[in-house]
Amino acid sequence: MIELANERTGPPDHLDKDQIKDQTDDLVDRLGELQRVLYAQGAYSLLVIFQGMDASGKDGAVEKVFKECHPNGLQVFSFKKPTEEEFAHDFLWRAHKKTPPKGMIHIWNRSHYEDVLIQRVHGWIDEQRVARRMSAINAFEELLAFDNNTIVCKFFLHISYEQQEEELMQRINEDEKHWKHNDSDWKEREHWPEYMRCYEDVLNGSTIPWIITPVDKRWYRDYIVAQALVERLEALPLEYPPLKDYLYAPKS
Amino acid sequence: MIELANERTGPPDHLDKDQIKDQTDDLVDRLGELQRVLYAQGAYSLLVIFQGMDASGKDGAVEKVFKECHPNGLQVFSFKKPTEEEFAHDFLWRAHKKTPPKGMIHIWNRSHYEDVLIQRVHGWIDEQRVARRMSAINAFEELLAFDNNTIVCKFFLHISYEQQEEELMQRINEDEKHWKHNDSDWKEREHWPEYMRCYEDVLNGSTIPWIITPVDKRWYRDYIVAQALVERLEALPLEYPPLKDYLYAPKS
Repeated sequence: MIELANERTGPPDHLDKDQIKDQTDDLVDRLGELQRVLYAQGAYSLLVIFQGMDASGKDGAVEKVFKECHPNGLQVFSFKKPTEEEFAHDFLWRAHKKTPPKGMIHIWNRSHYEDVLIQRVHGWIDEQRVARRMSAINAFEELLAFDNNTIVCKFFLHISYEQQEEELMQRINEDEKHWKHNDSDWKEREHWPEYMRCYEDVLNGSTIPWIITPVDKRWYRDYIVAQALVERLEALPLEYPPLKDYLYAPKS
Repeated sequence: MIELANERTGPPDHLDKDQIKDQTDDLVDRLGELQRVLYAQGAYSLLVIFQGMDASGKDGAVEKVFKECHPNGLQVFSFKKPTEEEFAHDFLWRAHKKTPPKGMIHIWNRSHYEDVLIQRVHGWIDEQRVARRMSAINAFEELLAFDNNTIVCKFFLHISYEQQEEELMQRINEDEKHWKHNDSDWKEREHWPEYMRCYEDVLNGSTIPWIITPVDKRWYRDYIVAQALVERLEALPLEYPPLKDYLYAPKS
């Protein structure tokens, strides 16, 4: 049973930052290699989901970890406030449209989990509906993972209340970060304890497990994410496909 | 009047390769900076079109030139054989759906130009229809460029007949390139002179000009592409947006 109060938000004390950064560089390179085979083979796909409080470093993880991947094989989707058309459908409709075809990595910045988080925190849906949605989410993710060769990697970016304040303040104090300032982030912050409770239910109620990622130090976040992805991809039988038969090409 | 026989496919003789590569690295870095402002500001968008014969290095240009861009703000689309649904619409339908919203860079690997190239070379459409399509293309691109703040950068990747053979052979001889081998590329190659004639009409008939990019040496290709993109973006009044009004955030 996961309780977030017991989960670290930063790296263990003994870690050597420079050493971890070097290891991360190697992992990021390795991810780029694996991604190229994934793409060439076209047999598996990878869905990476980042969830976390505002300013927990979702965009930064995307920027750092996938740096060596070929842009052809990578697509990022941000789940913002649903459009009118999206809202007129069930909550998984827009998510389903953004699942990765074989060969591709799709990254979701936020996801269908918003519909059991922000909606629940604000009481827009009742508890019965939350339970029904969690069942639907599990069935949906199992479909991808077990019936379509999609590796589903879900990261909960775990930031401390104090570190969030620091990150949000930077958006006010640094000119190049002004565009990221969203006043409503400060309002959502008032619901911190409810968010933590809802996240705990998500983490404990998922059949496809989450990776709880301490993000107060960005270098440790990148290490955990890169390591998990490389581990998952290395477990697959990835290989470049053989030469197909040919008629017109010269034989040599 | 552009005649492709007069256009170089490789770098000028006097160029120093290492020096050009260093300059390219700087341009690639600079493109990453500019892209971040483009994204933050959300006032302009960039559409990059790569056209060229098979193995002219479209994928490689994507890989090298956009290396420092944030994946959030970048999306690659490959125009392959139209799906049944696409084919049931006018030829610009699928292209229009993939135009970049403000803030984004979209890269098209092939494009709506295939419909006046491969289709014309094989005689699937008559000359009257080619002319009508070129008018439609010009109107479409002008709409994007002049009515929607979209910078349209079109690169014709100009490879020599000899270099294409070398590149295609690599796909047969190198294990990690087997997946790129497509037997029909060798068949299309037999139509080289017709393709060159059709490309000439495209290059001469476009209102938004093309950048003819010599690609026999990949390092020179990357330099020309990166330089052109940086030049176009630097001409825009890009800037990080100011802090918006706020109510809930602390003042400081």
